[in-house]
Amino acid sequence: MTTETMLANAALNSWKLIIGRLDAAIAPLSDEQLQRQVAPGKNRLLYLVGHLTAVHDRMFNLLGLGERLYPELDEIYITSPDRARPDPLSAAELKQAWSEVNGKLTAAFEKLRPQQWLEKHTAVSDEDFVKDPTRNRLAVLMSRTNHAAFHTGQAALIK
Amino acid sequence: MTTETMLANAALNSWKLIIGRLDAAIAPLSDEQLQRQVAPGKNRLLYLVGHLTAVHDRMFNLLGLGERLYPELDEIYITSPDRARPDPLSAAELKQAWSEVNGKLTAAFEKLRPQQWLEKHTAVSDEDFVKDPTRNRLAVLMSRTNHAAFHTGQAALIK
Repeated sequence: MTTETMLANAALNSWKLIIGRLDAAIAPLSDEQLQRQVAPGKNRLLYLVGHLTAVHDRMFNLLGLGERLYPELDEIYITSPDRARPDPLSAAELKQAWSEVNGKLTAAFEKLRPQQWLEKHTAVSDEDFVKDPTRNRLAVLMSRTNHAAFHTGQAALIK
Repeated sequence: MTTETMLANAALNSWKLIIGRLDAAIAPLSDEQLQRQVAPGKNRLLYLVGHLTAVHDRMFNLLGLGERLYPELDEIYITSPDRARPDPLSAAELKQAWSEVNGKLTAAFEKLRPQQWLEKHTAVSDEDFVKDPTRNRLAVLMSRTNHAAFHTGQAALIK
């Protein structure tokens, strides 16, 4: 395995590790448990699952990996704060969406070669990318991994 | 810049981004604010700063980058839960230790070449590293970046 492949794989492993831990934490939760807030007056676990599903779903377009699966989640779980609107999916359906989005994303990630990780993402213009080539797919992957870890820390407050 | 350097730099940028955000969040906090718990009965912000300082300080030895600076913090902020022992440093001193540890670590990281990021860390044996070459310095960097993001999510609950 080349140095380039080893380096890119380390980032992909980091993503898989964080998603795997969240999967293990979310899967056994009952509908009642998913309604709990991570701290008084803060987001419910269900909102965090919806939020992370929507944010990850946006990566299909952002990274040029195909069409996203659940565009309707953005309005509920990204644009609106928790409890502003009714949840559009049951807890079981949302868990299913979470697994589907991450499963398909990870499968697409596995096919990218190291050079492709350094290509620009779709939210940066050609002109801006010339000025700042760090705005690549890999930076998005790491940013989203950190974002998932950020909310995992909040979810972990519920024991 | 080579593909290898670009890939390694993306991981280093991700570390710097998370540490920079934590720096910006911690620096303006008063001693009183640092005594607040992230949720009822959970860790104080001061404990999280101590915990992250100790965990990051251990990376000097773990990554073979020299001697660590504050070994005395482990017993208070890693081995013991919050409020089990008196804080050994004032809030101002702890903030200073936090900045010093991350500053020196990041300077050492900047000097590593891509190949060096793929070398084994010191907590894995030569034999185990042959079996699993993903147990390298880069995996530790990403794991610690995610760990810092995990606790940043908790600290962010205090507004």
